[in-house]
Amino acid sequence: MKRIALSLVAAAIVAGVAASTPRASGHTDEKIAPIVGITIPDGYRDWKLISVAHEAGDLNDIRSILGNDVAIKAYREEKLPFPDGTIIARLAWKYVPSEENNKVFGREQSFVAGSPTNVQFMVKDSKRYPATGGWGFAQFTNGKPLNEAEPKTCFSCHKPAKARDFIFTHYAP
Amino acid sequence: MKRIALSLVAAAIVAGVAASTPRASGHTDEKIAPIVGITIPDGYRDWKLISVAHEAGDLNDIRSILGNDVAIKAYREEKLPFPDGTIIARLAWKYVPSEENNKVFGREQSFVAGSPTNVQFMVKDSKRYPATGGWGFAQFTNGKPLNEAEPKTCFSCHKPAKARDFIFTHYAP
Repeated sequence: MKRIALSLVAAAIVAGVAASTPRASGHTDEKIAPIVGITIPDGYRDWKLISVAHEAGDLNDIRSILGNDVAIKAYREEKLPFPDGTIIARLAWKYVPSEENNKVFGREQSFVAGSPTNVQFMVKDSKRYPATGGWGFAQFTNGKPLNEAEPKTCFSCHKPAKARDFIFTHYAP
Repeated sequence: MKRIALSLVAAAIVAGVAASTPRASGHTDEKIAPIVGITIPDGYRDWKLISVAHEAGDLNDIRSILGNDVAIKAYREEKLPFPDGTIIARLAWKYVPSEENNKVFGREQSFVAGSPTNVQFMVKDSKRYPATGGWGFAQFTNGKPLNEAEPKTCFSCHKPAKARDFIFTHYAP
């Protein structure tokens, strides 16, 4: 989950290429573009917390990973693979120092969530996304989806987590 | 909210002093120890997300701030002061690098939630906690509450956020 964003940097670069694939001419190839049909799930901001993380480097964000009820149940029961219907959401915000908090602490130590960057989703549907471990991938910035080239790239980065059904994030107790 | 933990370091230091106050002899003084009666709220781990943060320095944790339904409603409606019944939970975990994630990114950039440190609560009850802005404070480590000296110290650090009803955390959209 955490490295979807990284892969999307590459995805964004190849966006022009993707636009000239058969997909653009009307051919349907779910292996290439399983993002098709993934919309922002209703109420995802109300979902329960799986964990939190900070990605430094170019991303430099602080993030929370939320799950729908199917996801949370699977996590808590340590059930793998995640069942169809699982949706995991990764919300991210700019990682910014809090001057207000630092004043209270008396030192530079507090970093908080700034403006939102983007929201990513992994949707488990083993019939729909067989070529990418059963997962569909999507990213939205200000409500707008990224181009359709991304899922294959996302999946490529998630492969090392195959033993955990391609999900990197551990549940934070 | 974020600096309760810092204040608790001081609170822990003065714990021995607190033990010799009238409280220890059976005298009830809610101004000093509003923690009395605060237990871990049922189902708090399922509450909705307010925001996330990273406290470096001695704390060195990554945290999520969750709210019960009263809290979330007030945040989203930008309603101040928070109404009685509001409970805000601060969960924190050790801030640890993720070797697994870094391998995928190809650089040292990923920090995730390690083992849990402690859980803190702010409970709004203006009648019960008039001396501390209407807020009761509590901290639990492995389910056990910290000593009763802490709330006054917690409140002292929260005073700079008086304009936002003593809550530092902003809602992360």
